[in-house]
Amino acid sequence: MKNILWEHILAVRTQSPLVHNITNYVVMNNTANALLAIGASPIMAHAREEIDEMVALCNVLVVNIGTLDDVWVDAMLQTARQARILNKPWILDPVGAGATAYRDQVLSELIALRPTAIRGNASEIMALAKANQSKTKGVDSTAQSQDALAAAQVLHELTGVVVGISGETDFIVSAQPVIQIHNGTPLMTRVTGLGCSASALIGAFLAVVENKTEAMTAAVALLSVAGELAEKTSNGPGSLQMNLLDKLYTLTEDEFKNTLRIETL
Amino acid sequence: MKNILWEHILAVRTQSPLVHNITNYVVMNNTANALLAIGASPIMAHAREEIDEMVALCNVLVVNIGTLDDVWVDAMLQTARQARILNKPWILDPVGAGATAYRDQVLSELIALRPTAIRGNASEIMALAKANQSKTKGVDSTAQSQDALAAAQVLHELTGVVVGISGETDFIVSAQPVIQIHNGTPLMTRVTGLGCSASALIGAFLAVVENKTEAMTAAVALLSVAGELAEKTSNGPGSLQMNLLDKLYTLTEDEFKNTLRIETL
Amino acid sequence: MKNILWEHILAVRTQSPLVHNITNYVVMNNTANALLAIGASPIMAHAREEIDEMVALCNVLVVNIGTLDDVWVDAMLQTARQARILNKPWILDPVGAGATAYRDQVLSELIALRPTAIRGNASEIMALAKANQSKTKGVDSTAQSQDALAAAQVLHELTGVVVGISGETDFIVSAQPVIQIHNGTPLMTRVTGLGCSASALIGAFLAVVENKTEAMTAAVALLSVAGELAEKTSNGPGSLQMNLLDKLYTLTEDEFKNTLRIETL
Repeated sequence: MKNILWEHILAVRTQSPLVHNITNYVVMNNTANALLAIGASPIMAHAREEIDEMVALCNVLVVNIGTLDDVWVDAMLQTARQARILNKPWILDPVGAGATAYRDQVLSELIALRPTAIRGNASEIMALAKANQSKTKGVDSTAQSQDALAAAQVLHELTGVVVGISGETDFIVSAQPVIQIHNGTPLMTRVTGLGCSASALIGAFLAVVENKTEAMTAAVALLSVAGELAEKTSNGPGSLQMNLLDKLYTLTEDEFKNTLRIETL
Repeated sequence: MKNILWEHILAVRTQSPLVHNITNYVVMNNTANALLAIGASPIMAHAREEIDEMVALCNVLVVNIGTLDDVWVDAMLQTARQARILNKPWILDPVGAGATAYRDQVLSELIALRPTAIRGNASEIMALAKANQSKTKGVDSTAQSQDALAAAQVLHELTGVVVGISGETDFIVSAQPVIQIHNGTPLMTRVTGLGCSASALIGAFLAVVENKTEAMTAAVALLSVAGELAEKTSNGPGSLQMNLLDKLYTLTEDEFKNTLRIETL
Repeated sequence: MKNILWEHILAVRTQSPLVHNITNYVVMNNTANALLAIGASPIMAHAREEIDEMVALCNVLVVNIGTLDDVWVDAMLQTARQARILNKPWILDPVGAGATAYRDQVLSELIALRPTAIRGNASEIMALAKANQSKTKGVDSTAQSQDALAAAQVLHELTGVVVGISGETDFIVSAQPVIQIHNGTPLMTRVTGLGCSASALIGAFLAVVENKTEAMTAAVALLSVAGELAEKTSNGPGSLQMNLLDKLYTLTEDEFKNTLRIETL
């Protein structure tokens, strides 16, 4: 498994996929920098006049609803539709799912356009699963991490999407056995937008890796391992943000394989 | 006083208030990172469809007009109105007050919605005071820092708001005696958006501290002390920005109390 | 030549020009920080209600179409028109020229408003030249760097604008002999928006330097030299971004003159 994941990391570095991002204002800069650091090429564009051409140019689409409004939602829907028409993979980051009725309605419309993958934190994945199944299948009665895993499985069964849950342990849920990654550091939660970076990185891997479960696993493993190693030379969240970009760029095969703690359920 | 301020800093770290920001594009990323570094939880959201729910979810609102336009001004006004209805504290950062007629008009509408606090630099506070009093009370005939202090007092008397003036010396003006903080470093003016960070941090403290003068004082003291200490290990504005985030996160009681230079007029 | 360029760098530091930016969401933060680091004062503002006043207040305008849409294009056109009326210099950064029909149409409208300068990478300059000349003068049949240089000359002849081409070698094309700068480092391409920073810095120099060819040359030389020196203490793109801001701020005359490799064709 570690060998395959490392090969995928090299594939992104050498093939430099063009990643079209419709993402939130807060993280545009570090999302672009994270993509550049792993060897991908980021594009940010949202004008309805050029979306169809941009989707055609790019290898994958990343939609992140963080700072959504009606103009941006129109762009997200148009881009996702076009990605589907052109048969390009796309990933949805459901930032703040469950926080407001508006977010949940927009997420339903986006999920109806069949993303290839979805990545969120536990509460976002649980909110999505709840909104997309019948009321009687409520998943909010058991413990949280259990819930998120059950919710991810419900979401996968309903939509066929590969689901990633970020947290102390990261889960990748698909038709294959559930994968767990035990890397990263709590300090990563004090840097804004590393979840958004994870989604963008998954996008880059979806563009070059045929097996979508492996694509997500490689991206999540890369970010978690790089974050854990970057933390060792950091004095706080400011230096972690910087060292993470450096480590995404310089990570070696030995560092990756010796640090990664992965298991299949 | 130093003991009380340090207790407020610990209160933010432990209570982790949810801070709703409607702020400018330039600083969204470092505002979110500054809030995370002090232990608060930032949310950025501006869609009219979800503003009411977001205000209800959050503990405090930060409105910053930096890159305003008609869409964002509508969001600012709706959010401030909702904050008032739900009796949540909110702070206004009047970026560029006095620079254009449009800014001054928008600021008048926002101030009519009774912010809990306002923080700006000397010229912004002077512009606000001038726009909100009768012509005969013009405050622009004396020296600048005097002017800003007099202007802040006028502004406080007219609106009841707690007023912060940022500069070489920071002033906190309210019904209590004026407080001065003599920390920080000139290099902080070469990093974009540290004034905006100050306003966001004040927001976090307004959420957890009952006495609003103390809330603003604690936030301003924290940022100024952290900036001054961060400068000691910095080679320029790039490393200052990074080291400041680290120091906001790691600042100890001893560092805070030994560095803070505060006095009451 | 090196003496003159250094004098221009000092002129920006001492005169601190006010630079009005209408730029893309991805780079607003580091554009502002780069301008502050060289001693300039950045302003970001795009509301139609205040654009005319902002242009009047500022010394120069920077228009960057990176994340354009109809609202922002209206702001760009209005601002450029106003800059022309008030006879203020302005620079256009044609991000993604040639990528979509929409970008090319917007760029034609902007170029009709006679920018003082244009800076882009080789493919952007080639796309601009192609779109602005008759079909029979196609420039896409020869090798790339040759093409970009020929395209820049066509663009200069058609519009009178000073043209900058960024790349391994930077070219400045105007009525004067072509200038080449052989500084920088490939790692700079892994940091998002350094091309956008180059355009903003050129803006600052256009505001204080009468000879527009020298203005662009000084800005490009400053950024390339600072980037090359910053790379020496960097472990990857994250630390390069930070060290570059530090070096823009601290660069000395000796460092600049000893590092700069410049020649005239």
